[in-house]
This record gives sequence, structure tokens and C-alpha cells, in this order.
Amino acid sequence: MAYTILGIAGSLRKGSYNKMLLNTAKKLAGEELNIKIYDISSIPLYNSDEEKENFPDSVKEFKEKISESDGLIISTPEYNYSIPGVLKNAIDWASRPADNSPLNGKPLAIIGGSAGMSGTIRSQLHLRQVALFTNMMDMKKPEVLVTKIQEKFDSDGNLIDENLRDHLKKFLNSFEKWITFIKGSRQI
Amino acid sequence: MAYTILGIAGSLRKGSYNKMLLNTAKKLAGEELNIKIYDISSIPLYNSDEEKENFPDSVKEFKEKISESDGLIISTPEYNYSIPGVLKNAIDWASRPADNSPLNGKPLAIIGGSAGMSGTIRSQLHLRQVALFTNMMDMKKPEVLVTKIQEKFDSDGNLIDENLRDHLKKFLNSFEKWITFIKGSRQI
Amino acid sequence: MAYTILGIAGSLRKGSYNKMLLNTAKKLAGEELNIKIYDISSIPLYNSDEEKENFPDSVKEFKEKISESDGLIISTPEYNYSIPGVLKNAIDWASRPADNSPLNGKPLAIIGGSAGMSGTIRSQLHLRQVALFTNMMDMKKPEVLVTKIQEKFDSDGNLIDENLRDHLKKFLNSFEKWITFIKGSRQI
Amino acid sequence: MAYTILGIAGSLRKGSYNKMLLNTAKKLAGEELNIKIYDISSIPLYNSDEEKENFPDSVKEFKEKISESDGLIISTPEYNYSIPGVLKNAIDWASRPADNSPLNGKPLAIIGGSAGMSGTIRSQLHLRQVALFTNMMDMKKPEVLVTKIQEKFDSDGNLIDENLRDHLKKFLNSFEKWITFIKGSRQI
Repeated sequence: MAYTILGIAGSLRKGSYNKMLLNTAKKLAGEELNIKIYDISSIPLYNSDEEKENFPDSVKEFKEKISESDGLIISTPEYNYSIPGVLKNAIDWASRPADNSPLNGKPLAIIGGSAGMSGTIRSQLHLRQVALFTNMMDMKKPEVLVTKIQEKFDSDGNLIDENLRDHLKKFLNSFEKWITFIKGSRQI
Repeated sequence: MAYTILGIAGSLRKGSYNKMLLNTAKKLAGEELNIKIYDISSIPLYNSDEEKENFPDSVKEFKEKISESDGLIISTPEYNYSIPGVLKNAIDWASRPADNSPLNGKPLAIIGGSAGMSGTIRSQLHLRQVALFTNMMDMKKPEVLVTKIQEKFDSDGNLIDENLRDHLKKFLNSFEKWITFIKGSRQI
Repeated sequence: MAYTILGIAGSLRKGSYNKMLLNTAKKLAGEELNIKIYDISSIPLYNSDEEKENFPDSVKEFKEKISESDGLIISTPEYNYSIPGVLKNAIDWASRPADNSPLNGKPLAIIGGSAGMSGTIRSQLHLRQVALFTNMMDMKKPEVLVTKIQEKFDSDGNLIDENLRDHLKKFLNSFEKWITFIKGSRQI
Repeated sequence: MAYTILGIAGSLRKGSYNKMLLNTAKKLAGEELNIKIYDISSIPLYNSDEEKENFPDSVKEFKEKISESDGLIISTPEYNYSIPGVLKNAIDWASRPADNSPLNGKPLAIIGGSAGMSGTIRSQLHLRQVALFTNMMDMKKPEVLVTKIQEKFDSDGNLIDENLRDHLKKFLNSFEKWITFIKGSRQI
């Protein structure tokens, strides 16, 4: 069965390696996972006063895209031992209103890479804590923690590391099964 | 000795209880701590491309205010089991460039309150993790974790809870000593 | 369908409130969840040298009980902003060998209470991090975070708080569904 | 000035790489840091009932050694994305009674290594959370996160990696300054 996936990168810069990682996932995904990438750069700073009046248009669109999707893939760098503020800000908007958030029950896959050896360990752990409150259904295994990510792509942004390619394929395959699993559970 | 403190609220909404908490700290602080509150609502989304060109004006100002201060007080709510994206975003900007961030070595006091019983436990723990990377010198004790914060203020935003007032005074007193301590250590 | 659940308390002391909480869960569970409580006090300190020779008898028994169960309920206090060492130690043993641990894929329900207002928030968050590595399938919602737990029981250890009783019943009901859900997913 | 340091390894196995790391730190430390290694393998499982009667002899000794020291160095592996239960258990004992714990205000240095690429990131982060409650004064920088630790020692347990040797020397030098700093602050 084919699923529609919303792909979100946690970094806004053009040459972001985590964007490359997300684009690679999009290419590697077979027909079963149709990944559409959503750019969070137009989502304003969260302010609950605005929420009470009316959600900004970009936020409305973001929430609709989440609602229409069968799952999310978030590709995130690590900033200051945590997830980027811009990513958390987008999630803060999407989590509102608390009793009717499109994040509730949504299957979630997390990937990420860093220039050093940490591979975004702290960032991903923290994103799972956010998923606990928002009730996103984050897949646990396999994890994708890319070390020295700058060595994994050529200058055109193409993946040149075969081990990572194989691991991503396995990851995407598991995510498809995970979505099927979560969807099935809703009928129990 | 008198210290200049930059006070930052993690919520942007006008009637924020964490803003009230910060304002109360400002009033309760004696001559020793001169708390100036900085509004982070004009700080844009972090994008490292812009950093390479030129920091936005609001970010330049924010970084200067931090540099000029002897310490920071951050009053933060908890959004989705973590710190607000808007607060993390402001910290992400202030942390740049990594080798010359005004956050490096800066004394930090953390306060916060929630409507329920958690008192922003998770949010504050996570802010300390961010402080680890950025090398902010967060004071450990006492902690200010305000439960049922909406019951602690009258409709004009005045604190009406004597226990919290006493605790905040003790907290501010400890923070003054903490700053003296950290400043002294730089000479070792 | 009836499930066999292994109940584990994170505190060893006789009058532990978290033991009372676990005993209460055992009583409240209907025929669907048959909770058998396992005492971890005879599990020795983990030492991987012993593992290579032969697991201690008490550890063998503990691992068998986990294997035979359909799920785990862990009732844990919070010691020093984390899970008790004795609980982590039991989990360290059960997690071995890594490629054949009885924890792998096991449904997990977490409950806990504290004398103060934190309700074991930090302890439970951390137990979920341990569950991530060991691939225990921790149920996310509802959470059971009991504040002022000493006021919830009479001197005979009987629950005297109706709200908590109702919440525990709801929790146990959700856990039964969660187990059914996880078991079903293994066939995908 | 010369300081007496208590060194604690988080693993009990004889050939532990984290024991080798601690032994190396002991050798590299100059006259300023006299590191005495304490073996936690005889500390029993924590039970607060025993605490009320009388602390076990091994625990009394452990607490005295901590009291007499000017600081602690903990060398810890990562088990199941956290600190070993045996290490947490020893800390749980040392933290009692809460109003008179020898851990209170004690300078703490954390080191650790793993066979893979994570370098005990999660374990060390969590130990800092425990340090927050127990009010141990953990040094933030530099961090010692050793990846592929099995490649850093020869078969006799001697360090063969020059970069790590230099980093450890720098780390020990910083820790001496940190202790002087913390001791000075107590007079403020």
C-alpha cells in the first residue's frame, strides 16, 4: 500500500546536509512511500495570542499537510545539544490546539546527521521526548545517526556512501511497516 | 556589588504567567541585581546562511545585551515537554559564532511555572542540557518550579503567594552570590 | 483475552508506596490482566564477567519470568532525579545478551509516585530512554504520575483516592489494548 | 596545591576499558591530583530500610572516602542508553541522608568511553542530571567522550593514543582549577 509522507528538515540553510539526507530518503523510497518535502521557513514565531485569534496562513497549511499525511519523516541537525529552535517552533504550532492536534497518533520517523561523531544523538533523544507529549508514534528501530555527514555526499548533494544507502533503505522499509502497524492498531 | 541582569521570557503572549514571574523577580531584586527585560519577539528564525552574511539587527542587539550583562535570568514555560521553540531559537542565534558566543561562561538563573503540577520540570532540565553545550554557568540550587502558576498572581499580574515571594527572594540572593563566584573563578 | 503481566517495583523497602501502587494495580486489574509481582531484591550487582560464565540463578529466573509474560508493569520511585540503581541494575541484567534479551519487543507500562509534586516525572522520562535501547514497547498514554503519594493510601496500604483509582483502571484498560496492538504488529 | 581525588569506575568487570581509562588518568595526573581508585563492587543493593537501621559497612567506608576527598572522577560506560545500575546504586547510597550527603557540593569530573561512536554521550548527560539533584559540582568543559575505546589501549591496558593522552592531561589540568574554583566559592 502507498503512503503519503511529509518530510521536514530541521535546518533552514540552503546547503544543509540534513536536507540532503531527507532528499536522499525521498529518492530511495519506493512507490510505497511518497515523500513530499515541506519547507518550514515561512512559519512565524509561535505566539498563543495569535492562535486564539486565528492561525497564520502558513501554519494552517502546515497543519493541513500533516493531517493529510500518513506519517512524518523529520531530518534534524543538532544545535546546542538539542533540536533546532526553528524545528521546535514548527512543532509547537502544529501541536495546537492540544485537543485537536494533527500530530496526535501520527507515525514519525527520525533521521539526522552531524559533522562530528555524535550523529545527533542528543537531538534525536529530545525529539522523542517531544513526541511523548504530542503523542506522535515515533518508530524506535532502526535509528539513523549519521556521523561525519559532510563526507557522505558529493558536491551535488548525491549520497556516495553505500552503507548509509543500504541503512536508509532498510529504515524506509521498516517505516512502511510501522505505519501499517499503527494504522491497524487504531481499529483495536 | 551591583550586577546588570538580562531577563528573558520564553513565552511571547502578552498575558504570559512566566512574564509575570520575571517581572516579579525584577521588582523583588534589590539594588544588587538590576534586571532589564529583553523581548525576544523580534528575533527571526535562525538560518546559518544569514549568519555568514551578516547577523540580523535584532540579533546583533540581543547579543550585545547579553555581552553587556553580568548574567541571565530565563523564565520559561514548558511546551510539549520541552522549552519553547522561540526561546531555543533565540539561544541558537546567541550561540553563534561558536568560538565567540556571548553565552560562553555567562551566569544563568532559570525559573518557570506551569498551570499543572509539573512546574516546568522537563523544560528546565532541558535548558540545562543546552547550557552544557553553550557553556552557560547555570546555578543549580535553589530551583524555582512553580506549580499552578495561575493561582499565584492577581488579575493585575501581582504576586499574591507569600511562599513564592520568599523563595524568589532567596533565589535572587543566591544568584547574586553565584555571579560573584563565577566572576571570581575567571581569575584562577 | 487474558494476559500475564510481570509487575516490578523499583524500591526494595518494605513499606514502599510504589509497591502499594503496584499492588493496587494488581487488585484493580480484571481477568484480562493477571499481574504477578516479582521481587528484584535477590538480583546481584551486574558484572559482565559473570554473564560470560553463567548468569546467576536469580537472574535466570527473572529473565524467564519476563520471557513468559505478555508485558511488564514497572512502578518506580525517583531517586536523585532518576530511576533507582536497583531497578536499572535489574534491567541491565535482563538486557543481556543484547541479541537475545527477553526485553526486546516487550510491552511496557510505567507508573510511579513521589512524596512531593514531581510525581516521578524525571524518573519515568529516563526509563523511556532505557526502553528505547532495549526495544521495550512502552505505552505512552495515559501516564500515571502520582503526586503526594503518601496521602493516597491508608495505613494498611489500601488506596483511598477515588480519582487515582479511576485513572489506574483506565490505564490498565489501555494497557490491555496496547498489548493486543503490539502482539498484532508482530505479524506484519 | 595537591588534591585527593576519589576515582570510581562504573563497570565491575575486570577487563573494563573504563577502568583502564581511569587508571590512565591516575597515572597522568601530576602531583596536584592524587587519584585513589575505589572499587564499588562490595556496595549492596540500596534499601532505605537498612539506612534507617544502620548503613552497611561498605557504604560507610564509601561515604567516608567521598567526604575525605576534594573531588570525584567517575569513569563510566553506557548501558542501555544510561549509566550502569551499579554506579547509580552506589550514588543512591552516597546521597543518603539527603540533608547530610557527602556528595553535596563535591567537585565532579566525568569521563567515559564506548566501543562504538557514541562515546557514552547519553550516559554522561544523565549523570549530570543526577549531579543536579545531589548538588555535585560537575565540571562542564572539556568533555571526555572516547569513541572506539578498545582501539585506544594495548593488551596490557596502556594507553596508545596520543590525542587522547593530551586531551586527558588538559582535562586533569582543568579539573584541578575547577576544584580550586569551587573551594574558593564556599567562602563567598
